Amino acid sequence: MSKFEFKITNVDGNARTGVLHTAHGDIRTPAFMPVGTAGTVKAMTPEDVKATGSDILLGNTYHLMLRPGAEQVAKLGGLHKFMNWKRPILTDSGGFQVMSLAKLRELSEDGVTFQSHIDGKKYHLTPQRSVEIQHLLGADITMVLDECPKHSQHKKDMAVSMRLSSRWAARSKEAFINRPGYGIFGIVQGNVFKDLREESANDLKKIGFEGYAIGGLAVGERQDEMLTTLDFTIPHLPRNKPRYLMGVGTPSDIVEGVIRGIDMFDCVMPTRSGRTGKGFTPRGEINIRNARHAEDPRQLYDNCKCPVCNNYSRAYLHHLFKANEMLGPMLLTRHNLTYYQDLMHSIRNSISNNDLSGFIKNFYRDQLKGDVERLETEVHH
Amino acid sequence: MSKFEFKITNVDGNARTGVLHTAHGDIRTPAFMPVGTAGTVKAMTPEDVKATGSDILLGNTYHLMLRPGAEQVAKLGGLHKFMNWKRPILTDSGGFQVMSLAKLRELSEDGVTFQSHIDGKKYHLTPQRSVEIQHLLGADITMVLDECPKHSQHKKDMAVSMRLSSRWAARSKEAFINRPGYGIFGIVQGNVFKDLREESANDLKKIGFEGYAIGGLAVGERQDEMLTTLDFTIPHLPRNKPRYLMGVGTPSDIVEGVIRGIDMFDCVMPTRSGRTGKGFTPRGEINIRNARHAEDPRQLYDNCKCPVCNNYSRAYLHHLFKANEMLGPMLLTRHNLTYYQDLMHSIRNSISNNDLSGFIKNFYRDQLKGDVERLETEVHH
Repeated sequence: MSKFEFKITNVDGNARTGVLHTAHGDIRTPAFMPVGTAGTVKAMTPEDVKATGSDILLGNTYHLMLRPGAEQVAKLGGLHKFMNWKRPILTDSGGFQVMSLAKLRELSEDGVTFQSHIDGKKYHLTPQRSVEIQHLLGADITMVLDECPKHSQHKKDMAVSMRLSSRWAARSKEAFINRPGYGIFGIVQGNVFKDLREESANDLKKIGFEGYAIGGLAVGERQDEMLTTLDFTIPHLPRNKPRYLMGVGTPSDIVEGVIRGIDMFDCVMPTRSGRTGKGFTPRGEINIRNARHAEDPRQLYDNCKCPVCNNYSRAYLHHLFKANEMLGPMLLTRHNLTYYQDLMHSIRNSISNNDLSGFIKNFYRDQLKGDVERLETEVHH
Repeated sequence: MSKFEFKITNVDGNARTGVLHTAHGDIRTPAFMPVGTAGTVKAMTPEDVKATGSDILLGNTYHLMLRPGAEQVAKLGGLHKFMNWKRPILTDSGGFQVMSLAKLRELSEDGVTFQSHIDGKKYHLTPQRSVEIQHLLGADITMVLDECPKHSQHKKDMAVSMRLSSRWAARSKEAFINRPGYGIFGIVQGNVFKDLREESANDLKKIGFEGYAIGGLAVGERQDEMLTTLDFTIPHLPRNKPRYLMGVGTPSDIVEGVIRGIDMFDCVMPTRSGRTGKGFTPRGEINIRNARHAEDPRQLYDNCKCPVCNNYSRAYLHHLFKANEMLGPMLLTRHNLTYYQDLMHSIRNSISNNDLSGFIKNFYRDQLKGDVERLETEVHH
């Protein structure tokens, strides 16, 4: 079994490339992790997820503990085997989704009691149980259970919540069973408050983790608030450990996170958008349901090498979405994930070549262009 | 361009193997054609359809003429290019779906006027227009427009309808533009009435087609009625032309059709069942949503070599369907189509080895076994 180990290979400003070694293989960083909520990246086979360039995916403890259940997954050989994904998996702790999905939550020092949004069944989730569930699932990277307050709350409440999360982090770490190739990450909380973020980071460093996540962002705040928070939080994180910005984000969020020294991201955006007809391109997002694409024989964007763009026109994708054909979400999800992974690939290359700033200039120049011009034939309709 | 040509390679009783040469490649017969209604075999990529062993697929004129429209598909390079399927395509004439889906149908000698089930728009479909649409789509095999009456009607009405279909067949043939590698098939009507079927077959033979379909079956009659109809209809079809039993059917229907000399089949059954959680096995159908599969680590059936059975347990498929995950229909459709194509492959092999009867004995023996026993661990729950 290989050691769980993070090696930084290149540095460009605060950005860095690296390799995170885990029990199920290496993760090239900066990395984007597709979200495989209920044991599947929606509308994708694992082979196709791999083919987009994904090294690792994220599984949701909350969803899997409700259905089919952690013990059930363990009995079937663990999450990797269950869902036929042979590479690394990071599982979240369930904390975030308990707050956003579950019913009748009751929070205590011990943990959180809630009702399943599926069948109303009652569950009690503690830091120890969350870590146990993630162990049963077989996650390469376990996340500590944290309390995820809403963005709008007061600083005093945020401090109380952050300190509870710190105590839960200590209990999570204690419950974690160390094995070669497996690691546990702490989660910095404290909302947009500098002193709280610093206190949280220091709490976690004292406990000691294989990686440090920044939680409590991408929950409704403006991008500049998020970036300012990164600016004053990251300096308090260990330089030699992976840094993971949870639930982020748009292509621009990712680029800005990388500039500031983030190594890992996850977000439902490419997959969720793919199911609703939004396609990502270097020139921004397009809505494939829009009538302007109905007769457009062009691919989503020039130079995209993904199997979708190689084989299907905008007109065909438009048709699939208009006809509510499952192949529409299947193809657009695949394209979007490829776009995200190509973005990460380009980011890593530019850092390796010490030209992240050049890459970013081009990135924003292209984003500002907007979608390609309409075809002449359509203008005259 | 290769000639449109049917070569019989082996005969075993009334059954035969053959190869049908078309503009987009060869079709091994007996063949099963997956249904790609609206320019996609639902929940499948064309690459995956090919990988199941499918040589040809069926497109629906009715659906495609409404959306995106035949002229639109032609402008985008034809149906093959539009949907990225490089192999042969057979299109139906629209007749069947006008009767089953469209609103406010008005039938005349000239054709049928109807309203789209999508937006209520009015269309007039004649034999000439149906053939023109299929030409615009680029179908390797065009079907004549026929009138598809309900199964329950009286013989007198059936005779009137069948004779209208014969006149429409003549007009369809006349409208068909001959090109190397492309052909048009007639459709024998006449319901379950021996003399009407004979009259219809003779009408069509006089017109002359590259192939002969049997229509008006699989519309609610019992299997024995269908097979009796095949028994007295097939002797009136040319021996050296492909025979296509439209809209059929269950694995047993297919086996019985082959015995009687049918060369081609199409049916939504494997794909539709795949989307609703029904899986085909040599030991009959299983409902993957059934609780007995929830903890079953076994594949759908032993010896299935499909990529689904190689990688996923019944428990995982059960989970996907319970969680309404798109991957469930995607995987089960792929498995079911593979099952159908493996069945066709075995049928062709057994005919080549002059042992169709041996194959059929085993086929029914396995079907009668029913699904594998439950696992012990589950019995004790």
